[in-house]
Amino acid sequence: MSANTFGTLFRLTTYGESHGPGLGGVIDGCPPGVELSEEIIQRELDRRKPGQGSASTARKESDTVRILSGVFEGRSTGTPIAFHIANEDQRSRDYSTISEVYRPGHADFTFDAKFGVRDYRGGGRSSGRETVSRVAGGAVAQALLARAGIAVTAYTLELGSVRAQIADPQGAQDRPFFAPDPDIVPRWEELVRETKGRGDTLGGIVEIVATGVPAGLGEPVFDKLDARLAYALMGVGAVKGVEIGSGFAAAQANGSTNNDPITPQGFASNNAGGILGGISSGQTIVARVAVKPIPSISREQQTITRSGEATTITVGGRHDIAAIPRINPVLKAMTLLTLADFWLLQKRNA
Amino acid sequence: MSANTFGTLFRLTTYGESHGPGLGGVIDGCPPGVELSEEIIQRELDRRKPGQGSASTARKESDTVRILSGVFEGRSTGTPIAFHIANEDQRSRDYSTISEVYRPGHADFTFDAKFGVRDYRGGGRSSGRETVSRVAGGAVAQALLARAGIAVTAYTLELGSVRAQIADPQGAQDRPFFAPDPDIVPRWEELVRETKGRGDTLGGIVEIVATGVPAGLGEPVFDKLDARLAYALMGVGAVKGVEIGSGFAAAQANGSTNNDPITPQGFASNNAGGILGGISSGQTIVARVAVKPIPSISREQQTITRSGEATTITVGGRHDIAAIPRINPVLKAMTLLTLADFWLLQKRNA
Amino acid sequence: MSANTFGTLFRLTTYGESHGPGLGGVIDGCPPGVELSEEIIQRELDRRKPGQGSASTARKESDTVRILSGVFEGRSTGTPIAFHIANEDQRSRDYSTISEVYRPGHADFTFDAKFGVRDYRGGGRSSGRETVSRVAGGAVAQALLARAGIAVTAYTLELGSVRAQIADPQGAQDRPFFAPDPDIVPRWEELVRETKGRGDTLGGIVEIVATGVPAGLGEPVFDKLDARLAYALMGVGAVKGVEIGSGFAAAQANGSTNNDPITPQGFASNNAGGILGGISSGQTIVARVAVKPIPSISREQQTITRSGEATTITVGGRHDIAAIPRINPVLKAMTLLTLADFWLLQKRNA
Amino acid sequence: MSANTFGTLFRLTTYGESHGPGLGGVIDGCPPGVELSEEIIQRELDRRKPGQGSASTARKESDTVRILSGVFEGRSTGTPIAFHIANEDQRSRDYSTISEVYRPGHADFTFDAKFGVRDYRGGGRSSGRETVSRVAGGAVAQALLARAGIAVTAYTLELGSVRAQIADPQGAQDRPFFAPDPDIVPRWEELVRETKGRGDTLGGIVEIVATGVPAGLGEPVFDKLDARLAYALMGVGAVKGVEIGSGFAAAQANGSTNNDPITPQGFASNNAGGILGGISSGQTIVARVAVKPIPSISREQQTITRSGEATTITVGGRHDIAAIPRINPVLKAMTLLTLADFWLLQKRNA
Repeated sequence: MSANTFGTLFRLTTYGESHGPGLGGVIDGCPPGVELSEEIIQRELDRRKPGQGSASTARKESDTVRILSGVFEGRSTGTPIAFHIANEDQRSRDYSTISEVYRPGHADFTFDAKFGVRDYRGGGRSSGRETVSRVAGGAVAQALLARAGIAVTAYTLELGSVRAQIADPQGAQDRPFFAPDPDIVPRWEELVRETKGRGDTLGGIVEIVATGVPAGLGEPVFDKLDARLAYALMGVGAVKGVEIGSGFAAAQANGSTNNDPITPQGFASNNAGGILGGISSGQTIVARVAVKPIPSISREQQTITRSGEATTITVGGRHDIAAIPRINPVLKAMTLLTLADFWLLQKRNA
Repeated sequence: MSANTFGTLFRLTTYGESHGPGLGGVIDGCPPGVELSEEIIQRELDRRKPGQGSASTARKESDTVRILSGVFEGRSTGTPIAFHIANEDQRSRDYSTISEVYRPGHADFTFDAKFGVRDYRGGGRSSGRETVSRVAGGAVAQALLARAGIAVTAYTLELGSVRAQIADPQGAQDRPFFAPDPDIVPRWEELVRETKGRGDTLGGIVEIVATGVPAGLGEPVFDKLDARLAYALMGVGAVKGVEIGSGFAAAQANGSTNNDPITPQGFASNNAGGILGGISSGQTIVARVAVKPIPSISREQQTITRSGEATTITVGGRHDIAAIPRINPVLKAMTLLTLADFWLLQKRNA
Repeated sequence: MSANTFGTLFRLTTYGESHGPGLGGVIDGCPPGVELSEEIIQRELDRRKPGQGSASTARKESDTVRILSGVFEGRSTGTPIAFHIANEDQRSRDYSTISEVYRPGHADFTFDAKFGVRDYRGGGRSSGRETVSRVAGGAVAQALLARAGIAVTAYTLELGSVRAQIADPQGAQDRPFFAPDPDIVPRWEELVRETKGRGDTLGGIVEIVATGVPAGLGEPVFDKLDARLAYALMGVGAVKGVEIGSGFAAAQANGSTNNDPITPQGFASNNAGGILGGISSGQTIVARVAVKPIPSISREQQTITRSGEATTITVGGRHDIAAIPRINPVLKAMTLLTLADFWLLQKRNA
Repeated sequence: MSANTFGTLFRLTTYGESHGPGLGGVIDGCPPGVELSEEIIQRELDRRKPGQGSASTARKESDTVRILSGVFEGRSTGTPIAFHIANEDQRSRDYSTISEVYRPGHADFTFDAKFGVRDYRGGGRSSGRETVSRVAGGAVAQALLARAGIAVTAYTLELGSVRAQIADPQGAQDRPFFAPDPDIVPRWEELVRETKGRGDTLGGIVEIVATGVPAGLGEPVFDKLDARLAYALMGVGAVKGVEIGSGFAAAQANGSTNNDPITPQGFASNNAGGILGGISSGQTIVARVAVKPIPSISREQQTITRSGEATTITVGGRHDIAAIPRINPVLKAMTLLTLADFWLLQKRNA
């Protein structure tokens, strides 16, 4: 129950606001000997940058990571790995409006209710910028899991109501919107243009896939692998739903169609999404998340001031119009962090 | 990362298999002075019993709880509250088939992969029977939260593809299937009969609602209230999806329609499901889960033996044909346990 | 920060008061395949019983353990191992005095200050009887560690001011007072008689020794092996001091005499007590604890009532006159639990 | 069981080696509204600097702290407070000797046994330099606890075998060696000179005192306040023993002399050291630790190389000859961190 630490054996603790000196984190529990460098982490951070599709702004953030500890001669030492990403683009702005008015759909109201004080500059701790630390942490988990042959990818299945084919998931990482389907890109670009023109924003669905996960990860009761994945993914801002395998479709299926038959060659289908009874089955793990539209819209909205008076707000500025695609590397990172934790834990039974 | 403890400040540790001496748990962290008795816990356990609708078997389980510690003169003392529920209905059976064959859709294969050893009698630790301990723990959380005016209910929104109206959620607790809609009951009964006749099983959707939750519960980054709810609910066997508020529908909405306007009288809608930025807003908290059909079907299925040879299995016996409605009190309990934890944690900021 | 759970990967959660239905615990995290039975646990519980020396009372407690879960066909299954020890000797007594007066040297005053409510019967949760659960848990840890060749013993070094020779530590387990020195037994018996005659009580020093611990257990910063041992041992009632290796004597030594020279055959001395920089060195681990005299004396003492008025109290009854020797198996158990946790954790780096 | 996080509700996670970019930490769980600044933290860091007595070297370390997050307009916001202290004095040195030879009394051997890899520059993570992060974290805890009237001090009771009178503990903070006795200072200076002349080093005893702690902090079973203090203090490098109140002297006392009588005006003595049954009594909390002599001596010592061959080593260089007095602010910080955690936890029962 800590706001800012994720994991038990492979632990990421993060800090930082969008408008202070910077953001960062400490990874505790990474075994010694894992190949690590600033380049390895930077590569993942770069995937999170604006410009992965027209849904993102052109705001310039170099997001350069610096490793502060725990790496010696190109490898982890087993001691905490700290990293820091300095904030660069801190234009001097006038926050007087935002500091006194709650933006609908944002955490402004609830943050104030919780803490009674709020670093309102750019969303403070509840800004999406907080996720750089998650992506950096996920990069370390990725380096650890790569040694075990475990890999994770995330691609966009749906933007607004326009659904992609999973035609080429391998190519998604290098495609706008992390699209698994080359043909969908122009349609999504058109959708973004049109929505932007109306001063509105878009949601969507992201699918996360983990391959190479051995059977046996996850715990049978509370710490089911799917429960921890749901925790990890729902903990990313803007996510409103998580499903595993056949997910909500399973609610309408019958046992005879939803069960995955087992053959000497393996499971004959994967409605389970690679997890049975909370434990990985050795199949590909498949999760999907629902991402809500970004609440910052340039249309006028009804709201109240901190003192409770009715007012309206129009949130302009350099905002993305969808959390997709920038949320994809974050969801990938959270999945990696979850798997790293379970992978280390399962060694206990060795 | 413990298989069997849930929560940080309000902690439930559970134990027990379906065919040993019994099941139970220990609640650690309940403040002193909460009114408690075996009757208070028993009332919730009784809601979980078979017979809440024709989807459940007529199997007799008295599930009588005994408090072993932590309650003195009708109130909690602040020390651990242990409780035990003896197993009664342990018919001597022949498990030779189940012990050597993996049932599709069950944890048999993955449990074996994880532990290398398995108490195969009745599903062992991965049996649904494990959830009695959760319900008992939830009853204690309910007694604690009642003092703060927080209440939780769970009702069935959908069985198979047949959806209820939320016409009378208050009455759901005393209605077959925990149905919020009196008119749906005969239709669900017919659906159950028909599905049973085909030797098949059903899934569905349960909605969980928490009222009286003050604004400010939940933590802004990893331990978002919705993230912890997702963890709690996805950790219940058979759950394959969790959504909060508008959930997966949010993926197709626009910011202008999905944002909840704020007025001096409160929020004008509740697409957020009572949670903004991971923190409760003071509105009703709304979650929905997808429940997969029970994998034990009386139709022949393709599978393998422990030694990897192809075979078939037909799972007969006294099985429910849907996890609904018996899963409802379990989902309610998990929500209560989650809220109790956050409620105690928030006192830290007082 | 849980009152009643010890450990992270090998976790013991305990419950129970001296005058309720019973006491017990749940062990979570024991790997599958460890040989376990009620006999194995009972053997350790029997060492804690009264009658290990004349310092203990003749009170009859059978302390019979029952395993409730987690063991199947003579071995652990990897799921939680619950055990229960029913209270038997609950003579109906008059607690009206104790319920309203704070006994000096006991937790009566502080318990009341903390919880505002108190199960005053026999000390409630702060009774020494609580330690049966620790000893049972330690027995499971012992079974796990035995597979790795790790063993722990505890013997009495000093009773009052009378010090033993560590002449025969192996024989201590079967000797009155867990005396490592056969010749000291009659002297300690005389000391006990004489102290009892004066209506007074005795303290002493216990030494705990762990052999077979491989080099590498413990963490370099906060979770040093010695820090966790200090936590484990100081967490036993009546313990007022803990030292490792040369301990307090190191404060007066010089570096040239306190350092242990290293040779190709191993360390040439063991002032470090088997731990360097918080990490086990492969040498024998040596800890000593100071045990205060039992506060229940039959002489009149000055105290106050719950309402704050001056009064006196004379605590008669069936009380031991020293926590030694019954504390020895408890200290052994806490050391075993600590080592089991670190042993499982170190596998993460494998 | 994390090497690098301390606490549950008030959590300090630290990182850094003596010869990387720097050291620092993240405090998670500090309530909002606590007055904080770099100056407040710097003040405590300055107490840890060399020059607090002739036992310390003249090495120059500016140890300038920078707050990276969690403080806004002079107060904590409730979000993580990260701080960083850059390493400055990193003379280019030749570590070829140290990298291949284990220094007796240091963690070199055990670190290698644990991790298989070692950042040997200046002791790496097991360097005393690691404690700057603890002192910075303690300063935040101090600011929090000050609001509740809780204060902690640490002073030197004994250097070598020369014991101070506790004549003026208030003045100790501004006196060489943190001496509570002005008259002892010249004698300790002489002792240091003489020991240095012999190429040797000194140990000692530090007493830590906490005032203003309300009755009721601490948990009755495992998480006793004294158990957690023992963990906190034994977790500081060089500490080999911890005692509370009468400590090891209690082992030789009788119940009649060791019990603290209770009067309407309070306890008549404080052998308990302010803790009864693991819970604070409202009296002053008193702990003492034994500090071993620094193992780096300029006399030749017997040791082995990493490959196991016999050799000798002489550790010269800029080394303190006693961990005292620089360890005093570290012990104070660990006590503050422990109390902050319990203080927040006890609010749960409010």
